[in-house]
Amino acid sequence: MPRSRVSTSLDTNGRGLRMEEAQFIAALRALAFEPAARGLFDDAAVLEIGDEALVLTHDTMVEGRHWLEGQNMADVAWKLVAVSLSDLAAKGAEPLGVLIGHTLGEGDDRFVAGLREVLETYRVPLLGGDTVAGDGARTLGCTAIGRATHRPVPSRSGARPGDAIWVTGPLGAAMLGFEALRDATGADSSAYRRPSPRLAQGKSLAPVVTAMMDVSDGLLLDAWRMASASGVSFAIDSGAVPVASAKRRDECLRWGDDYELLFTCPPEATPPIPAHRIGTVASGAVPLVLDGLAIADPAGLGYEHR
Amino acid sequence: MPRSRVSTSLDTNGRGLRMEEAQFIAALRALAFEPAARGLFDDAAVLEIGDEALVLTHDTMVEGRHWLEGQNMADVAWKLVAVSLSDLAAKGAEPLGVLIGHTLGEGDDRFVAGLREVLETYRVPLLGGDTVAGDGARTLGCTAIGRATHRPVPSRSGARPGDAIWVTGPLGAAMLGFEALRDATGADSSAYRRPSPRLAQGKSLAPVVTAMMDVSDGLLLDAWRMASASGVSFAIDSGAVPVASAKRRDECLRWGDDYELLFTCPPEATPPIPAHRIGTVASGAVPLVLDGLAIADPAGLGYEHR
Repeated sequence: MPRSRVSTSLDTNGRGLRMEEAQFIAALRALAFEPAARGLFDDAAVLEIGDEALVLTHDTMVEGRHWLEGQNMADVAWKLVAVSLSDLAAKGAEPLGVLIGHTLGEGDDRFVAGLREVLETYRVPLLGGDTVAGDGARTLGCTAIGRATHRPVPSRSGARPGDAIWVTGPLGAAMLGFEALRDATGADSSAYRRPSPRLAQGKSLAPVVTAMMDVSDGLLLDAWRMASASGVSFAIDSGAVPVASAKRRDECLRWGDDYELLFTCPPEATPPIPAHRIGTVASGAVPLVLDGLAIADPAGLGYEHR
Repeated sequence: MPRSRVSTSLDTNGRGLRMEEAQFIAALRALAFEPAARGLFDDAAVLEIGDEALVLTHDTMVEGRHWLEGQNMADVAWKLVAVSLSDLAAKGAEPLGVLIGHTLGEGDDRFVAGLREVLETYRVPLLGGDTVAGDGARTLGCTAIGRATHRPVPSRSGARPGDAIWVTGPLGAAMLGFEALRDATGADSSAYRRPSPRLAQGKSLAPVVTAMMDVSDGLLLDAWRMASASGVSFAIDSGAVPVASAKRRDECLRWGDDYELLFTCPPEATPPIPAHRIGTVASGAVPLVLDGLAIADPAGLGYEHR
C-alpha cells in the first residue's frame, strides 16, 4: 500500500516532468471546470442531459498493483467492472452499460468468462471498448455509465453537523480474502476477488442520505475525505464499526476494497436497509475524530492509489 | 503495422489462453447483446435515453505502439482525446465530455498541458478519470461521450447500392508526419501528432449520409469494413482519392491516423461541406473493388490494431 508523496522529479532528459499522483490530480482539477465533473473530488461525474442525470466513472487496474500476477483473469474482469459499478452505487444510479479497455494477454478466455458473469449478475450491457496488445504489466480500464434514480444525486460533500454516520456492512473482508489468495491458505478469498457493488442499497439510500460514497480505500481514509469534502468533522467510534476480524480491528478500518457504502443521514432518519451507525457529524476543522482523538493528517489512514 | 491472426496459444501454464485480437473481439461481441452496442461493429455505442441519443466510445493507446517512445506527451494527450472525439464526429455527435485513464510517468506536466489544449480547442469538458502508477510501457485510455445531433444516428451499415462514396480530405498526411517525426527531418509532423477530429463536418453530414465512419486504420481497410457492415460492395477509383503524396498513392490509401470522414450519400445528394467523391456503392458479395479489381480478403489493406 504505497502512499502518495507530493514531489517532482527533475526534468533531466528533456522529456518533461514526472509528477506524483496528488500533484497530477491537482493539475487535472484545474481543467475540470464543469460542474458535472464535481471538481474530480467525487466518485463519479454527474451530467445533466434532458430530464436525466447521467453518472459516469472510469477506473483503471494494473497487473501486480490492483491484482496479483497470475490471478485468475475471470476474477480480474469481475473486479474491474464491479469497482466501477460501485461508483454508480454510491450515486444511487442504475447502470446503463460499460465500456472496457483491454490489453491482450494470458487468460483472455477467462477474462471474457468473468466479464460475462459480472455483466449477467448485475444485468449490465457491454456497450463497447478497445483492445490493444501490450508488453509487460497489463493495464485494464472500465468506464461505467448509469442514470441517477433520485435528485439531488448524492455526493461526498453534503454531510451536515448533527447527521449520523453509517456504513452498510463489515470492513476487512477483502483484506482477509487477499491474504487467503496470496498465501493460498484455502480460506475463502471471494470478498477480495469478487466484490459486490451495493447497487440496490445505493438506490434505496439515495433519497435519505445527505452524503454517500463507496469505501474503496479504507473506511478511515474515505471518511476523512467525505468529511473534508463536506467541510465538517466526523466523530467515529471505532468499536461501533462492523469488522471482519475483531482481533485486527485497526487493519480492518484501514484496508480498502470492501466497497461497502459510507453515508450520512439526518439524525432522526432510519436507513431503509440494514446498516451500522458508527458516529456523528460535528462542525470543526479537523476532518476525523476517532475515539475522541483528532486526526488532521490522512497519512496512514488507508490506501492511496498509485 | 502488425496484423491480427486468428490463433490461440496453448494453455501451458494453467493461467488460461492467450487470444488474438480478432478472436477476443468475437468473444466480446457475443456479450454485446444490447442494440446500443451496435454489436461492437461500429465506431461508438449509441444509447437512447429520454429524448437524447448518447454516443459513447473508448480508446486505448500504448507507448511504443500508438506513440513513439520519448514523444512529447502534450502531443500524446492531444491525440488520445482527438481520436475519441473523431469517433463522435463519425456519429455527427457533439461532445459532452471525456474521462481519462492515465498512467503516471515522464512528461506528466506536458500531458496536462496538451490535455488542456485539446479540451479548450474543441470545448470539451473533462469529466473525470483515474490515475495509476505503472512500470514499463504506459497505457492511456479515453472515454468520450456525446449527444447525437441528428436521427437516425449514422452508422457504418447504412450504405446502399447506387450511393456515392465520399471522403472529407486527403489521406496519407499522418504517414508523412509520422516519418518526419521518427526521422527528425524537420518537416511538419503535426498531421500525425495533432489530428483534427472532424466534428463540424460530421454534424453537417449527419442529415445527408447513409453511412459514415472515421478513417483511422487506412482508407481501403475502413472502406472494406463499411462495405461489409452494409452488405454491399464499394467500387473505389484510387485515382480519385485525395492523397498527401501522389508518388506514394498506394501507401496513402493504406496508412491510418488521418481521421478524415468516409461517408456514403444518395447519388443525387451534394455534401454540405467540401468533400471528394471516390467511388460508387454496388450490390455484390465482394466488399471492395479497387480500380476494377475485386478484393475479398482485407489482409494487407491497412492497419489492424494490436
